[in-house]
Amino acid sequence: MLVTTGRRRRHVRTVAFDPKKNAVVLVEQRLLPHRFTRVATRDYRETARAIRDMVVRGAGAIGATAAYGLAQGLRAFTGRSPAAFQRHADRVFQTLAGARPTAVDPVNAMRGILAALNPAAPIPEQQAQALNAAEAFADEDVRHCRELGEHGLPLIPDGARVLTHCNAGWLAFVDIGSATAPLYAAHAAGRRFHVFCDETRPRSQGASLTAWELAQQGIPHHVIADNAAGHLMQRGEIDLVIVGADRVLGRTGEVANKIGTYTKAVLARQHRIPFYVAIPLSTLDWSLRQGTDIPIEERAADEVLHAWGASPDGRRTRVRVANPSSPARNPAFDVTPARLVTGILTPVGLLKPSELWRRRRDLGGPA
Amino acid sequence: MLVTTGRRRRHVRTVAFDPKKNAVVLVEQRLLPHRFTRVATRDYRETARAIRDMVVRGAGAIGATAAYGLAQGLRAFTGRSPAAFQRHADRVFQTLAGARPTAVDPVNAMRGILAALNPAAPIPEQQAQALNAAEAFADEDVRHCRELGEHGLPLIPDGARVLTHCNAGWLAFVDIGSATAPLYAAHAAGRRFHVFCDETRPRSQGASLTAWELAQQGIPHHVIADNAAGHLMQRGEIDLVIVGADRVLGRTGEVANKIGTYTKAVLARQHRIPFYVAIPLSTLDWSLRQGTDIPIEERAADEVLHAWGASPDGRRTRVRVANPSSPARNPAFDVTPARLVTGILTPVGLLKPSELWRRRRDLGGPA
Repeated sequence: MLVTTGRRRRHVRTVAFDPKKNAVVLVEQRLLPHRFTRVATRDYRETARAIRDMVVRGAGAIGATAAYGLAQGLRAFTGRSPAAFQRHADRVFQTLAGARPTAVDPVNAMRGILAALNPAAPIPEQQAQALNAAEAFADEDVRHCRELGEHGLPLIPDGARVLTHCNAGWLAFVDIGSATAPLYAAHAAGRRFHVFCDETRPRSQGASLTAWELAQQGIPHHVIADNAAGHLMQRGEIDLVIVGADRVLGRTGEVANKIGTYTKAVLARQHRIPFYVAIPLSTLDWSLRQGTDIPIEERAADEVLHAWGASPDGRRTRVRVANPSSPARNPAFDVTPARLVTGILTPVGLLKPSELWRRRRDLGGPA
Repeated sequence: MLVTTGRRRRHVRTVAFDPKKNAVVLVEQRLLPHRFTRVATRDYRETARAIRDMVVRGAGAIGATAAYGLAQGLRAFTGRSPAAFQRHADRVFQTLAGARPTAVDPVNAMRGILAALNPAAPIPEQQAQALNAAEAFADEDVRHCRELGEHGLPLIPDGARVLTHCNAGWLAFVDIGSATAPLYAAHAAGRRFHVFCDETRPRSQGASLTAWELAQQGIPHHVIADNAAGHLMQRGEIDLVIVGADRVLGRTGEVANKIGTYTKAVLARQHRIPFYVAIPLSTLDWSLRQGTDIPIEERAADEVLHAWGASPDGRRTRVRVANPSSPARNPAFDVTPARLVTGILTPVGLLKPSELWRRRRDLGGPA
């Protein structure tokens, strides 16, 4: 997306590659919204650390980072032995896969890269194939998000008041984003609308990342406390909800997403407001049979007990919000049942949750 | 309630009076949960500032503070002219009433004090009457909360898992609290139960004040993000919800309380979990005809854009959580319809919202 830094306004992808320097170039998300900067990792181990330390986060973005990281690692191989090249490839794969052990996107992305290599070809040729495949992976992520925007455009009429939760924006993908795709498409089409960004405690990605994204594009918005959405719906100030997802079950249409998503879906139904979930195809899980099978990560209590931000002197720091002797529970995701979901916005169109299984072949699912 | 400071454990009221020093003694709530300390205001203007600057907050607590502050102001009068005493009383009343212009409790409390004075009596006698009336007001607040505990005890069986929102604890009253009264009664009765404290953004009173209160009493609890309650209900980990209120309409049973309360009520109904509201009689509003007539205070956007807490070096400070160029909406309260409320816990017993009007005479309402 277009980003303004100083007086410059330029197009930036969340994840990119510099072939000359053999570097993965990432938006440093830990400094946002307080500072926009990009970092270049010169080595696959450094790329793995960037994934682990959350320089980059979001399913699409870490998938592309791992894809580029694998190509980067393969390109750094200077030997001539095919067997040694194979062992090196395994090591690079394992290092990048281990950076976020519960995430599925890096592994799927890297498997795609490896499948594109011709093991009979000379090593330099395979190195070129890896980079081509990584570029194709990143471009496909962007194309999927663009298609989400095209199919989602009718959801955002002039005057719409939209609620979103967490960050499923371009920072979570290579570009454009999933939940934000219809918003950016509507903005490009000249429509006027308003977005409410749930703060999304405990990590506050809505207040920090989504609000930053919308401000960069000049889209009118307000940050609200997670507690306020119900009240705004009750007052008739929200027309639709659109969120991303971490996993959508192809068999049932259930949606696993950031903690609090389920609450918004319950509230939306209570007020007869449509509730949409926007996803690329890689978010579809065709194997799990029911939402209760989805493992819910319980993250560190410290996230709930503290808040992160910029202190008055501009340093990025955290403050202890909660009583010092109190413990916290921190489930990071929840599961929204299909009956509360008005539509799943996919690169092939807007579908009812119950249509996913029937349309599984169009959606890259099993036969 | 009992408070541990250093090695001492002693009984403390949120608001008390020292007749020798003519001082109102307050728990300094702005330093909680990071530091427990009490401050004595020596003059009614200082007491008004303590109300305005939120040294003390919560309906019952600021009512009692204003009552004591009025007595304090009248006792400081050294003249002999009844007319001058009357003018002085007006000035004290206006100063204390103006400290929190939208709050009704200070005004009601002070009207009660003035009504207890015999204007024909000598000034020193009226000064004594004022202090007696203020003490009686504070004691009645405590008695009401104790009755809430007695009537609410059956709601908290052994093993109960309770969700509460914001702080309707003893810090918001003179002692014991409203929503916390059944919890403290059950704890005193030796019952074992668990409390989930909603953080309650943007001011985080649940994470800071309620969690501190429960920790002081040794009641097991967890702080959770406001986003997590729905998930915990979905997983069957919450048995009941109990909250306080800022205003309950005697005619309709509608409940105005801290932003986010309505969301918990919708979630509770969705999961068939009982939702209780605990209030002293002073919270009942017999005049308004419907919830939409309740003015909803929209507070400063800065509360949403920042978080307050203790920095790593122990200083109390705030951090900017949200994108620096983004605005926020900050409705501070919401209104829960009577149909979502299982019961209103009052000093005269647990009532259905629809029973309030019929029982209005028992509840101090109109004839």
